[in-house]
Amino acid sequence: MADRLELYHAEPLSNSLKVLAAIHEKGVPFVSHPINLRRFEQHEPHFLAINPAGQVPVLVHGECTIVESTVINEYLDESFDGPPLRPGTPYGRAQMRVWTKFVDESFRPALSFLAWARQMPTLVGALPEGEFERRLARIPLREKRDKWAMAARGGFTPREIEGWRQNLIEATGRIEQALAAGDWLVKDGFSLADIAVFSIANSLSSGYAEIMNEEIAPRTMAWLARMRTRPGVAAALAVPTPPSPVEKPPATPSDVSG
Amino acid sequence: MADRLELYHAEPLSNSLKVLAAIHEKGVPFVSHPINLRRFEQHEPHFLAINPAGQVPVLVHGECTIVESTVINEYLDESFDGPPLRPGTPYGRAQMRVWTKFVDESFRPALSFLAWARQMPTLVGALPEGEFERRLARIPLREKRDKWAMAARGGFTPREIEGWRQNLIEATGRIEQALAAGDWLVKDGFSLADIAVFSIANSLSSGYAEIMNEEIAPRTMAWLARMRTRPGVAAALAVPTPPSPVEKPPATPSDVSG
Repeated sequence: MADRLELYHAEPLSNSLKVLAAIHEKGVPFVSHPINLRRFEQHEPHFLAINPAGQVPVLVHGECTIVESTVINEYLDESFDGPPLRPGTPYGRAQMRVWTKFVDESFRPALSFLAWARQMPTLVGALPEGEFERRLARIPLREKRDKWAMAARGGFTPREIEGWRQNLIEATGRIEQALAAGDWLVKDGFSLADIAVFSIANSLSSGYAEIMNEEIAPRTMAWLARMRTRPGVAAALAVPTPPSPVEKPPATPSDVSG
Repeated sequence: MADRLELYHAEPLSNSLKVLAAIHEKGVPFVSHPINLRRFEQHEPHFLAINPAGQVPVLVHGECTIVESTVINEYLDESFDGPPLRPGTPYGRAQMRVWTKFVDESFRPALSFLAWARQMPTLVGALPEGEFERRLARIPLREKRDKWAMAARGGFTPREIEGWRQNLIEATGRIEQALAAGDWLVKDGFSLADIAVFSIANSLSSGYAEIMNEEIAPRTMAWLARMRTRPGVAAALAVPTPPSPVEKPPATPSDVSG
């Protein structure tokens, strides 16, 4: 395993947090390439050359490029020594994968869509006239382009918004219930299931405190605190967030394209 | 591995086809429990006792219950002897998982939603007055309940319908492109990636021939034919489809509840 390991990632939130936490928990040395999502750097040509889908995180290991955070995390655990991040039995791994799948198919999309609905108008407002449309045209995935356009013009329906909020409420209940059986989501012990759920729940508990809090989800709040004190997770959370163009507008176009 | 292996499944389509193909390719003996989706048997109390989410397929192995077709297929490959259905390297398995994830997050939902939009009004029309509402109330997952209600009253928007059609067109392009590099979706050979994609593409090529056909996707059509001649896949496709209540209405309510 002498091949160079490189990780393209954004700030420690969502899918980037998921992989940063796993790679730090694993204790594998890697080269970090921060990508600034607030400047839409993931859609710049230099990054599209690495992942044509224009999405972070991306792991490059020697000649191999691996995309999709959930896939990357299993790859890291299968490829490197260090503490195992997956249960030792097929049944344990199956339970772990039900959680990582749930994060990918329900928990993460619900929080992402709500975040876009909230933040996209501000991000767009901070750009010069016509710039958002130009950037939108560069998004390689049609489905994402459509969702962003919809978010930017406040076009999500009340039914959609309410559905995503319900997903977050149901996710909170599901996590709280699972933690009645033990300290970690899968009985066998700490695993990629905890890392995947934490990558979203950590933001939920701060950004949507009316949904996830001490009263509604005491076991979940204790588990979040337990997660944050793990050295690998703490190292991931300490990865700096790149500056936002809203707080400090880029001086020149070349500064934007990173 | 002397534990009894039981599979609850519907007809060989979509997620049920995915697991039936894997279990037959693996050559593992199992007890088959057919569940009649056309009679909404997956929401009946006797099945909810096995999977509270009211979804097929479900694998029961001794004391362990495993849900989610993609998770079940990795479990089968990890737990039993027989031909390996996953590539032998971490990178090969990562590529396989990108495909199985794509099926779960884009390809299958797009086809399912379009199928519901097409078929649900007919299924509902065949039921006695008020019966659909009673059955709807029994669906345990809120998100699925909402989608079914929407489909039944023809409430999907043209934007949603068109988005799903685009997903199917894009999926076809993606499969066709991958097959330029070899006979199977992952270069290492036949794998759960082929099984997962086949479970949806097999229906697409017959039900949406304007999207997937010889002219647009010749390599895909040849691969579909190759898949169908595999003994395990052929055995899965030969699993009988339970009778539809539309063709032959149930004589008594007890017949409906199976």
